[in-house]
Amino acid sequence: MSRTSDDIRKHLKVRRQKQRAILAMRWRCAQGGLEFEQLDTFYGAIRPYLCVAQFFGIMPLSNIWSRDPQDVKFKVRSIGLAVTGLFLLLGGIKTLVGAKILFTAGLNAKNMVGLVFLIVGMVNWLNFVGFARSWSHIMLPWSSVDILMLFPPYKRGKRSLRSKVNVLAFSVAILAVGDQMLYYASGYCSYSMHILQCHTNHSQITFELYLEKEFSDIMSIMPFNIFSMCYGFWLNGAFTFLWNFMDIFIVMTSTGLAQRFQQFAARVGALEGRHVPEALWYDIRRDHIRLCELASLVEASMSNIVFVSCANNVYVICNQALAIFTKLRHPINYVYFWYSLIFLLARTSLVFMTASKIHDASLLPLRSLYLVPSDGWNQEVQRFADQLTSEFVGLSGYRLFCLTRKSLFGMLATLVTYELMLLQMDAAWMDGCIT
Amino acid sequence: MSRTSDDIRKHLKVRRQKQRAILAMRWRCAQGGLEFEQLDTFYGAIRPYLCVAQFFGIMPLSNIWSRDPQDVKFKVRSIGLAVTGLFLLLGGIKTLVGAKILFTAGLNAKNMVGLVFLIVGMVNWLNFVGFARSWSHIMLPWSSVDILMLFPPYKRGKRSLRSKVNVLAFSVAILAVGDQMLYYASGYCSYSMHILQCHTNHSQITFELYLEKEFSDIMSIMPFNIFSMCYGFWLNGAFTFLWNFMDIFIVMTSTGLAQRFQQFAARVGALEGRHVPEALWYDIRRDHIRLCELASLVEASMSNIVFVSCANNVYVICNQALAIFTKLRHPINYVYFWYSLIFLLARTSLVFMTASKIHDASLLPLRSLYLVPSDGWNQEVQRFADQLTSEFVGLSGYRLFCLTRKSLFGMLATLVTYELMLLQMDAAWMDGCIT
Amino acid sequence: MSRTSDDIRKHLKVRRQKQRAILAMRWRCAQGGLEFEQLDTFYGAIRPYLCVAQFFGIMPLSNIWSRDPQDVKFKVRSIGLAVTGLFLLLGGIKTLVGAKILFTAGLNAKNMVGLVFLIVGMVNWLNFVGFARSWSHIMLPWSSVDILMLFPPYKRGKRSLRSKVNVLAFSVAILAVGDQMLYYASGYCSYSMHILQCHTNHSQITFELYLEKEFSDIMSIMPFNIFSMCYGFWLNGAFTFLWNFMDIFIVMTSTGLAQRFQQFAARVGALEGRHVPEALWYDIRRDHIRLCELASLVEASMSNIVFVSCANNVYVICNQALAIFTKLRHPINYVYFWYSLIFLLARTSLVFMTASKIHDASLLPLRSLYLVPSDGWNQEVQRFADQLTSEFVGLSGYRLFCLTRKSLFGMLATLVTYELMLLQMDAAWMDGCIT
Amino acid sequence: MSRTSDDIRKHLKVRRQKQRAILAMRWRCAQGGLEFEQLDTFYGAIRPYLCVAQFFGIMPLSNIWSRDPQDVKFKVRSIGLAVTGLFLLLGGIKTLVGAKILFTAGLNAKNMVGLVFLIVGMVNWLNFVGFARSWSHIMLPWSSVDILMLFPPYKRGKRSLRSKVNVLAFSVAILAVGDQMLYYASGYCSYSMHILQCHTNHSQITFELYLEKEFSDIMSIMPFNIFSMCYGFWLNGAFTFLWNFMDIFIVMTSTGLAQRFQQFAARVGALEGRHVPEALWYDIRRDHIRLCELASLVEASMSNIVFVSCANNVYVICNQALAIFTKLRHPINYVYFWYSLIFLLARTSLVFMTASKIHDASLLPLRSLYLVPSDGWNQEVQRFADQLTSEFVGLSGYRLFCLTRKSLFGMLATLVTYELMLLQMDAAWMDGCIT
Repeated sequence: MSRTSDDIRKHLKVRRQKQRAILAMRWRCAQGGLEFEQLDTFYGAIRPYLCVAQFFGIMPLSNIWSRDPQDVKFKVRSIGLAVTGLFLLLGGIKTLVGAKILFTAGLNAKNMVGLVFLIVGMVNWLNFVGFARSWSHIMLPWSSVDILMLFPPYKRGKRSLRSKVNVLAFSVAILAVGDQMLYYASGYCSYSMHILQCHTNHSQITFELYLEKEFSDIMSIMPFNIFSMCYGFWLNGAFTFLWNFMDIFIVMTSTGLAQRFQQFAARVGALEGRHVPEALWYDIRRDHIRLCELASLVEASMSNIVFVSCANNVYVICNQALAIFTKLRHPINYVYFWYSLIFLLARTSLVFMTASKIHDASLLPLRSLYLVPSDGWNQEVQRFADQLTSEFVGLSGYRLFCLTRKSLFGMLATLVTYELMLLQMDAAWMDGCIT
Repeated sequence: MSRTSDDIRKHLKVRRQKQRAILAMRWRCAQGGLEFEQLDTFYGAIRPYLCVAQFFGIMPLSNIWSRDPQDVKFKVRSIGLAVTGLFLLLGGIKTLVGAKILFTAGLNAKNMVGLVFLIVGMVNWLNFVGFARSWSHIMLPWSSVDILMLFPPYKRGKRSLRSKVNVLAFSVAILAVGDQMLYYASGYCSYSMHILQCHTNHSQITFELYLEKEFSDIMSIMPFNIFSMCYGFWLNGAFTFLWNFMDIFIVMTSTGLAQRFQQFAARVGALEGRHVPEALWYDIRRDHIRLCELASLVEASMSNIVFVSCANNVYVICNQALAIFTKLRHPINYVYFWYSLIFLLARTSLVFMTASKIHDASLLPLRSLYLVPSDGWNQEVQRFADQLTSEFVGLSGYRLFCLTRKSLFGMLATLVTYELMLLQMDAAWMDGCIT
Repeated sequence: MSRTSDDIRKHLKVRRQKQRAILAMRWRCAQGGLEFEQLDTFYGAIRPYLCVAQFFGIMPLSNIWSRDPQDVKFKVRSIGLAVTGLFLLLGGIKTLVGAKILFTAGLNAKNMVGLVFLIVGMVNWLNFVGFARSWSHIMLPWSSVDILMLFPPYKRGKRSLRSKVNVLAFSVAILAVGDQMLYYASGYCSYSMHILQCHTNHSQITFELYLEKEFSDIMSIMPFNIFSMCYGFWLNGAFTFLWNFMDIFIVMTSTGLAQRFQQFAARVGALEGRHVPEALWYDIRRDHIRLCELASLVEASMSNIVFVSCANNVYVICNQALAIFTKLRHPINYVYFWYSLIFLLARTSLVFMTASKIHDASLLPLRSLYLVPSDGWNQEVQRFADQLTSEFVGLSGYRLFCLTRKSLFGMLATLVTYELMLLQMDAAWMDGCIT
Repeated sequence: MSRTSDDIRKHLKVRRQKQRAILAMRWRCAQGGLEFEQLDTFYGAIRPYLCVAQFFGIMPLSNIWSRDPQDVKFKVRSIGLAVTGLFLLLGGIKTLVGAKILFTAGLNAKNMVGLVFLIVGMVNWLNFVGFARSWSHIMLPWSSVDILMLFPPYKRGKRSLRSKVNVLAFSVAILAVGDQMLYYASGYCSYSMHILQCHTNHSQITFELYLEKEFSDIMSIMPFNIFSMCYGFWLNGAFTFLWNFMDIFIVMTSTGLAQRFQQFAARVGALEGRHVPEALWYDIRRDHIRLCELASLVEASMSNIVFVSCANNVYVICNQALAIFTKLRHPINYVYFWYSLIFLLARTSLVFMTASKIHDASLLPLRSLYLVPSDGWNQEVQRFADQLTSEFVGLSGYRLFCLTRKSLFGMLATLVTYELMLLQMDAAWMDGCIT
C-alpha cells in the first residue's frame, strides 16, 4: 500500500514536472526569441508574405524582420510607410491620368473596368495601412492564443499551419503569374495582328511598341525608354500583386483561425464519452470565449478588406461574364479569357470556402457535447452548448454579408441568373439581326 | 473591531445618502423643470428639430416650447395643426395641378417621379400627424427610461446624445442644402443653354424666367410676381425639407434608442466576472424588458414613416440609376446628378446603419453573460440570455422588413443586379444602333 | 375566525357552483342545439358563407343548414356534390371550348390569361371537394376548441368573431361586385367604340350584341337567346365568385385561428406578474398544444387551396403589371384597369396579412413569460417558452412558402423589381422607336 | 401473494426470452445470410438497381450479387471498373467529337446543351466511382442501423421500404422510357418532314437515315451499319440512363433515410404521455445520434452527386424554358416538348420533396416531447429537445444549398421570374417586329 502511494506520489511528481516544463516553455515562447520562432504560429506562417508585401508598400510595419510579434508595430515615421506613400503617389498619378483619358473619351460600362481596377487598388493600399495600424492589437492576443494551443492538452494538426498557408499561397501565386503572362501575351498578339491588318507598310512589330501602347497612360507624361517601360511593368505588377494579395491574405487569415478552431474541436472531441469535471468544462469554455473574441477582433479589423475584395471580385466576374459570347479573334485571346475567368471564380470561391471553414469548425464541438454522458452533464456544458449555437463566428464584410457557403451559393445563383438573362438577350438580339 | 463596524456603518450611511440623493434628483427630474432640461434626454435632443419642423407643419404638437415632455401633446385645436392643414391644402393643390399636367401629357415612367415626390410628401404630412397623436404615449415612457438611465448605476456614454444627434442632423442638413442649391443651379444652367441654342433673339435670360418655368405648375393658377416666386420656393422647400426630415427623424430616433441599449450593455459589461446576486440580475432583466417595450412601442408607431421613407428612397435611387449612362449636357448637370445620387445612397445607408445599431447594441450583453462565473449562474441569468437571443429589437416597416445590415445588403445587391442588367441592355442597344 | 372560515366555505361553494355551471353549459353546447348556435364559434361565423357557396357547387357538404357541426359531413350521394359535378361539367366544356379557340389562334403570353383563369377555377372546385372531405375531421376539434375558449378563464375578444368575419367578407364582396360591374362596363364601352369607328353603317349597338361577343365561346355551341345569355352570365359569375371565395375563405379561416391565439395570449397576459402554480402552467401549455395541433391540421388541409390562391394571384398581378403602360382608349378602361389591379393587390395583401396574424398572435405570450417572477419560474414555464420559440404556427402552401409578412414583402419586392425592369425595357423600346 | 410473484417471475422470464430471441436474431442477421436477406433493409431495396447500373458502368462494385453488404466492396481490379472505364473511354470519344463539331460551328447558348449533357454524364460516371469507393464505409453503419430498427421496440412502417423504392423507381423509369421514345419519334418526324419539304426528289425516308443524322457524331468516325447504329443507340441510352439514375438514386437514398427517421419518430410518439425512465430517454437519444451520424455521412458522400444533379436539372429546365414560345412545326414536337419539360420538373420536384422528407421526419419527435408529463421531464429529454432543434438533417450540395422545400420554392420562384422576363421580352420583340 505504501508502494502504491509512492507510485501515486511519483506519478504526481512527474505530472507536476511536465506541467512546469510546459509552463516554462510557454513563458520562454511568450518572450519571443528562438523558441517562439520554432513554433507553428500564425505570425510565423504569414511573416514571409508580409515581408514580400513590404516591397509593394502593402501593410507598412516596422521591424517586420523581427521574430517577436511584439516588436512589429505600425510607425508613422518608417520606411514601410514611405514606400506606401510612394506607391500611393505614383498610383494616384496613374489613376488620375487614366481617369482623364476616360472622361474625355466618354465613360461607359465597358471601359470603366480599368479605372475601377486602379481605384480599388488605391482604396486597398489605404485599407491595408488601416489594418497595419491595428496589427499589434491583433497579433498579440493571436500569438498568445497560438502559444496556448500549441502545447498540451491541445494537439497539433496533422499538417502544420505553415505548410497549409504555403501551399495555398504558392498555388495562387503561380496561377496569378500565369494569368499576368497570358495577359501580356494576349495583348501583344492582338496588337501585332491589328498592326499587320491595318498598316501593312509598318515594317516592324516589336514588343516595345506594344508596351508603348499598353502603358500609354504613363507614356503621356513620361518619355518612352527602357526605364519608363520597367516603371510601367513595375506599377502594373504592383496593382496586380495587391489585387491577388488581398484575396490571399483573407485566405491565409481564415486558415489560421480555422486551424485553431479545429484544434479546439479536436480537444473537445477527445473528451467524448469521458467523465469530465465541471472545472475542466469551465476552462474549455474560457478558451472558446478567447478564440471567439480573437475571431471577432479579426473580423472587425478586416471588414473593409473583405468588403472591397468581394465587391471587386463580383464586379470583375460580372464584367467578364458580359463578354462571354463576344467573338474573339485569336486562340490566345480565348485562352486568356477563359483562364482569367476561371482563375477569378476559383479564387473567389477559395476565399469563401476557406472563410466558411472557420464557422464550420466552430460548430464541430456541438456533436461531441451530444455524447457527454448523463451524469457528466452540468451547467457549464449546457452554457457551452448554448454559446456554440447562439453565435456566428467568421469573417464578414461590415456584417452586411458573411463569408459562408450560403453566401457563396447566393452569389453564384445570382451570377448564373444574370448570365442566363444575358444569353437570352443575346439570342434575341441575334435572332433580330438575322431576320 | 468596533471601529470596523463604525466604518461599515459610516460607509452604509454614505451609500444610503447617495441613493437618497439620486432618488430625490430623479424625482425632481421627473417633475420636469430645469433639472430635467439639463439632462441628456432624447426629448431634449430632438426638441430643437421639432420646433423647426413646426414651421413646415410637420408633427403638429402644442406646447412644443415647454421643457417638460408631459406638456407636449397633440391637440386638434392648435396652431400647429392649422399650419399642417395649410400645407396639406397648398401641397394638395400643387399635387393636383401637377397630376393634371401629367395626365394630359401622358403618364410614363420618367415624368412620374415628380408626381410621386409630391404624393409621398402629402402622405408623409399625414403620417407625421398620426405620429404626433401617439407622441405623448411614447415620450412619457421614453423620458422615464431616460431619467432612469442617466443616473448610476448606469454610466453616461462618452459623447452625449445631444451632440450625436446634432452632428448627424447638421451633416445631413448641410448636404441637403447643397443638394437643393445644386438642383437650382443645374436647372438654371440647362434652361439658359437651352434658350441660347433655340431662341437666339431672346435677349435676356434671367433667373426669374427660369423660375417661371420651374414653378410652371404654380404659375398656371397664380400671376407671376415676386410673391408667387417666393411662394414657389417656399412650397418646394417644404417638400424637400419634409423628405429629408423623414430620414433624419428615423436616424435621430434610432440613435436615441441605440444609446440606451449601449448604456445598458455597458452596465452589464461592468459586472463581467463579478459575483452578482440574483436580485440584481432580476433588476437588470426588468430594465431590459422596459427598454424592449419602449423599442417595440416606437417601432409600432414609426412603422408607416419607416415604410414610406425606405420605399421612397429605393424608388428614387432606382430612378436615378436609370439615367446613369444618359448623356448630360453640362458639367454642372453631371455634378448635380452624381452629388444627388451619392447623397441619396449615403442618406439611405445612414438610415439603415443607425437603425441596425439598435439591434447590434441589444445583443451586446450576451458576451458579458458568457463570462458570468459558474457559481454566479442562476435562473435569472439563464432567462436573461434566452430573452436576448429570442427577440428582434429594432425598427421595421410594418414588420414587412427590418432595418438591419442584412436588409441593406439585400437592397444594395438587388440594386446592383438591376443596374448591371440596365448596363447590359444599354450596351446591347448601343451595339444595335451602331450596326 | 369561524366567520372567516364560513366566508371561505361560501366563497368556495360559489366558485364550485360556477365551475359546475360552466361545465354543464359546455356539455350542453357540445351537444349542439340552441346553446351552441348562440356561441361565437367559427362554425357559426362561416356557416352563412358556406350556404351561399353551395349554390356555386363550392365545398359540397350535406346538412349544411344544421346548427350542429357534427351533422355536417361530406357525402358522395348528396345534392351538393351533384351541383359541383354540374359546375365541373359545364366549366369543363367552357374550358375545352376556350382552349380549342386559343390553340387554333396560337397560344401566347397575353391570351393565355383567360384559359389559366378557367383552369384554375376547375382545379379549385376539385380542391374544395377535397377540403370538404376532411371538413368533419377539422370542424369537430375546432368546435371543441371554440367551446373551450368561449368560457372562463378565457375572455371573449372585444369584437366577436362573427362580426369580424362579416366585415371582412362584405367588404371584399362589395369590392368584387364593383370589379365585375366595371369589367362589363369597360368591355361594353370598348366594344361600342370599336363598332362605331370601324362599321359606321352598323345602326345598332346593343348590350346583347356585346354579350354575344363576350360569351362567344359559349355561343359557339349554343344558340343566342336570353337563356344562353343568362347562362353565360351565371357561369362567368360562378368562376369569379369561386376566385374571390378562395381568398375570402383563407381570410376567414385565418381570422378564426388568429382570434383563438389572441384569446390565449390574453389569458397568459392576465397572469403577468402573478404567482401561478405549476399545474396551471401545465394546463395552459396543454391548451397551447391543442391550439397548435388545430392550426397544423388546418394548415395541412388547406395547403392546396393556399398554394393555388397565391400562385394565381401573383400570376394575374404580374400579367396586369405587364400592361401598366399600355395606352388604353377610354377613361372607363383606365378606371377598370387600375381598380382591378388595386383590388387584386389589396386582396392578396389581405390574405397574407390576416394569415400572418396567426403567427404573430402565437408569439404574443412570450412577452408575458418574461415577466413571470423569479420564484414562479419553473420547468413548465421553461418548456412553454421553448415551445413558443421553436415552432412555426400559420398557414402555408405545401410548406413551400409560409403566409407571413416576410413572404409578402419578398413577393412585393420581386414584383417591383420585375416592374422596374419592364419600365426600363419599355423606355428603351420607346427611345428606339423615336430614333 | 406468492402467486403474483410467480406471475411476475414468469412475465420477466418471457420478456427475457423474447429479448434474447431478438438479440440472437439480430446477431444472425448481422452475420448476413438468408435472415438478413429477408429483412427490409436499404441494401436489399437498392441492390437490384445497383445490379442494373453495373451494365452501364455506374457505381462499379465487386460482389454486388452477394446478399451480405460486407462482401460488396470497391476494387480497382474488377469487372465493374473495367466496364466503367470502357464507358468513360467511349463517352469521352463521343464528347470530344461533339465538342470538335461545336467549336468549329461556333459555340452558343443553344447548341451548348448537347455538349453540357455529355460532359455532365462523364462527370457523373466519375462521381459514382468516387461514391463506390466510400460505399462500404456507408453501407456497414447503415445496415447495422437497419438491423437495429427492424426489430422491437421499433415498429416497421406500413409500407415496406422495398415497395416504396420500387414504386418510385418504376414510375420514373416508365416515364423516362416514354420520354426517350418520344425523343426519337419527334426527331424522326421533324427529319422526315424536313426532307419532304426540301428535297422532293428524295424517294425514301427511312428510320436508318434519320439515325445516321441523329448519330452523326459517331458516324463521323465509324462506318454506317447495323452495328454502329446499335452502338449509337446503346451509348445514347447509357447517358440517358445515367442522367435518370442520378436522380432516382438520390430519391431512393432519401426514402431510405426518411423511413428510418419516421420509424424513430413513431417510437418516440408511442411514449407520448407515458412515464419513461431517464435511461430509456438516454437510449433513444443515442439512437438519434446514430441516425444523425448516418445521415451526415451519407450527406457528405453524396454532396457531389446532389450538386451535379440539381445544377444540371436547373440548367436543362432553364434551357427548355427558353424555347417555351418558339413555334414548333408538328404536333409530335409539341407533345415531346411539353412531356419532357413536365417530366423534368416533376423529377426535380420529386428529388427535392423526397429529400426534404428526411428533415421533416427528423423534426417529428419534437411534438411528442411537448407531451411528456411534468414529472417525466428530465435532463435527457431537455438535451434531446435541444438536439432536435439545433441541427439540420438532410441532403445538400456541398452544403451550398440544402434539399428542402424552401430551396425548391426559391428555385421555382427564380425560374418563374426568369420565365416572366422572357415572356415580356418576347412580347416586346414581337410588338417590334409587327410595327
